[in-house]
Amino acid sequence: MELLKVATKSSPNKVAGALAGVLREQGYAEMQAIGAGAVNQSVKAIAIARGFVAPSGLNLICIPAFIDIEIAGEKRTGIKFIVKPK
Amino acid sequence: MELLKVATKSSPNKVAGALAGVLREQGYAEMQAIGAGAVNQSVKAIAIARGFVAPSGLNLICIPAFIDIEIAGEKRTGIKFIVKPK
Repeated sequence: MELLKVATKSSPNKVAGALAGVLREQGYAEMQAIGAGAVNQSVKAIAIARGFVAPSGLNLICIPAFIDIEIAGEKRTGIKFIVKPK
Repeated sequence: MELLKVATKSSPNKVAGALAGVLREQGYAEMQAIGAGAVNQSVKAIAIARGFVAPSGLNLICIPAFIDIEIAGEKRTGIKFIVKPK
């Protein structure tokens, strides 16, 4: 399973392209974001990716969930987005 | 149609409660957020609301979209979340 890690500096357009690619390959995708900036870029990427896959008849939806991540020994709470066709 | 406006300072728990209430009343809900902080609080609220309505057999999903909003004569781009049971 490929996990797309999104950062504040990620380009929503590029993430949307990667998202569309992963969706084509495995039918669904998972994105991970830590912090408001990264969550914001993830949401924009999902909205953009909806446009990429809509002509193929796919209506993308997302499910947000909390995840606990350990970075350099420090526990952080992040957001995981499960993205899939309706 | 009730539109939930979410701000950076909104409490995700309170927004989740409001979201669950609107969902019970009209079957779906719309949230509006401008800026990374507000988008982040919206996403957290959706994740929390999933837990509120799951015992009733509802599996909440969301669809993010861009919206153009005019605030005090200035054009801003915001995010609209359509939240509904799958």
